[in-house]
Amino acid sequence: MYPGLALDSNLKNLERTAKMKIAVIGTGAVGGYYGILLAKSGFDVHFLLNSDFDHVKTHGLYLSSVDGDIKLEQVNAYDDPRDLPFCDIVIVALKTTSNHLLKDILPHAAKPGGVLVMLQNGLGVEEQAQEILPGATVIGGLCFLCSNKTGPGHIRHLDYGSVRIGQYHSGGPAGKTDILKMVSDIFSSAAVAVEITGDLGRARWEKLAWNIPFNGMSVILDADTSRLVNHPASLSALKNVMLEVTGAARSCGYDIDDGFCDTMITATTKMVAYKPSMKLDHEAKRPLEIDMIYRKPIEAAEAAGYCMEKTRLLMNLLRYLDSKRF
Amino acid sequence: MYPGLALDSNLKNLERTAKMKIAVIGTGAVGGYYGILLAKSGFDVHFLLNSDFDHVKTHGLYLSSVDGDIKLEQVNAYDDPRDLPFCDIVIVALKTTSNHLLKDILPHAAKPGGVLVMLQNGLGVEEQAQEILPGATVIGGLCFLCSNKTGPGHIRHLDYGSVRIGQYHSGGPAGKTDILKMVSDIFSSAAVAVEITGDLGRARWEKLAWNIPFNGMSVILDADTSRLVNHPASLSALKNVMLEVTGAARSCGYDIDDGFCDTMITATTKMVAYKPSMKLDHEAKRPLEIDMIYRKPIEAAEAAGYCMEKTRLLMNLLRYLDSKRF
Repeated sequence: MYPGLALDSNLKNLERTAKMKIAVIGTGAVGGYYGILLAKSGFDVHFLLNSDFDHVKTHGLYLSSVDGDIKLEQVNAYDDPRDLPFCDIVIVALKTTSNHLLKDILPHAAKPGGVLVMLQNGLGVEEQAQEILPGATVIGGLCFLCSNKTGPGHIRHLDYGSVRIGQYHSGGPAGKTDILKMVSDIFSSAAVAVEITGDLGRARWEKLAWNIPFNGMSVILDADTSRLVNHPASLSALKNVMLEVTGAARSCGYDIDDGFCDTMITATTKMVAYKPSMKLDHEAKRPLEIDMIYRKPIEAAEAAGYCMEKTRLLMNLLRYLDSKRF
Repeated sequence: MYPGLALDSNLKNLERTAKMKIAVIGTGAVGGYYGILLAKSGFDVHFLLNSDFDHVKTHGLYLSSVDGDIKLEQVNAYDDPRDLPFCDIVIVALKTTSNHLLKDILPHAAKPGGVLVMLQNGLGVEEQAQEILPGATVIGGLCFLCSNKTGPGHIRHLDYGSVRIGQYHSGGPAGKTDILKMVSDIFSSAAVAVEITGDLGRARWEKLAWNIPFNGMSVILDADTSRLVNHPASLSALKNVMLEVTGAARSCGYDIDDGFCDTMITATTKMVAYKPSMKLDHEAKRPLEIDMIYRKPIEAAEAAGYCMEKTRLLMNLLRYLDSKRF
């Protein structure tokens, strides 16, 4: 069933997995962070870059992290996907606003039957990738990471860093597969905390329950997480939108109860003030990930007979603001 | 039934109504405009002022209007409501955010059985006024006016100027009463276009159907009416919110059909670009009229079993933004 897996799941030691080739598509705050950690741990990592290519080719990659700084002097850097070697594992860490590029990248990056690890926001990214490479094993990864790119080839890591991964299967939960455990081992060996979930769909919706209210409202109200949770009006709006998302999740068959919202809000209250990725995108005048974080969930819920009215209102406000960035 | 009316409804000519005393409470963009026109037409108008008192006492009031400029040299100006004479008609044109002051103003301004004309936004202003003066006749007025105060005692009139008036009655529509016709005659004699409605509640909700989406979104998206109606995302949001308001109106017993929304949007598309009053308030760092334009309609609909979820979301976003004005 999984040609890529047949080879790799027999590998019982990391010495052999360390010989695996890993591609990082999108060397920014997320891809840069995990890619540097994996390369530092001895994996053969190949970085696809865009505007930073010349700088990284000459000066390497630099991670300034709360856990200690890392400098990668020699980097396998590429600015053309056709130059990439076929890799066992392809980590996709582009903003989803660039996902139209994947059809021209993935076929050059992944070996036949390879593994795609989608470290992206929103809903539907695994489905997109699977359509491009029907023979690949597609894994979704949800990052709990505070990092940003502060300059060419320079990633700053502020807090957290764990990843929750689950295997995509169009027919429902894939369970905790061997290939998932292998990918988990690879990240773990690079000192990344990994949690495996057997139900990727549920994990995606749980993340959306946070992302939909916090990302949108941080942009609309020009506020970080601390300001949002510490004002009664924005807190009320956050909760109402979050409850709509968990309601939508249930309509799609994921049994997330409303108490989950209180847990998320409380956890956010205890976090340091944090700007969600969409807020950082907006400040940097990058396009907002509205399609994957808003439109796809709205459509999925609608198909299940659930109307996400408040989420749609936020989406429309965001689309307007997004159009004014030039 | 209407002690004030007994006297005034017998007046068949404007020569006699012209002797009536009129108080203007709140001499800003709205109160200043109508007050100056009424005074210019020969009515005995008494203006309550706040910060502009000294300037107006010395220099008078000035209206620069698309219909011609008017200078009032001698103004009956007051800075203390206790100095006002008892008036036959009291025009209340304060921002509703100052309505807590009315209990200390109205008893000094209105003669027993006098007429209160509430030129204010939102829902519930007539009820508030009636509670303060149970013996008064309370009339609600909805202004279709583009004006602003550009300096002390200086009102600038940009466009429109008509008023729609209806008589308040706690038990339902009051009909087109004689006293309403008298007030209409007074405004008409000052060259103000007046429309009489027998159903003030319905008129209030019709205005809310415009005010709730346009006022809030102009603040949240930093946009005038033209930008809002000319972008597909904001247009969609406007329509969805407006349909929620007409749904709420129907739940409250006012038969406003959804086609009304298209009419309103089309009319706004044909208007010149315009900043709603709440947008002007926000730019001037004045408090926003959230209670009367959002909270009161939400509560009225809720009491009728209708949940205005999108309006509540806008309200909470506005409350947050309103709190950041200092």
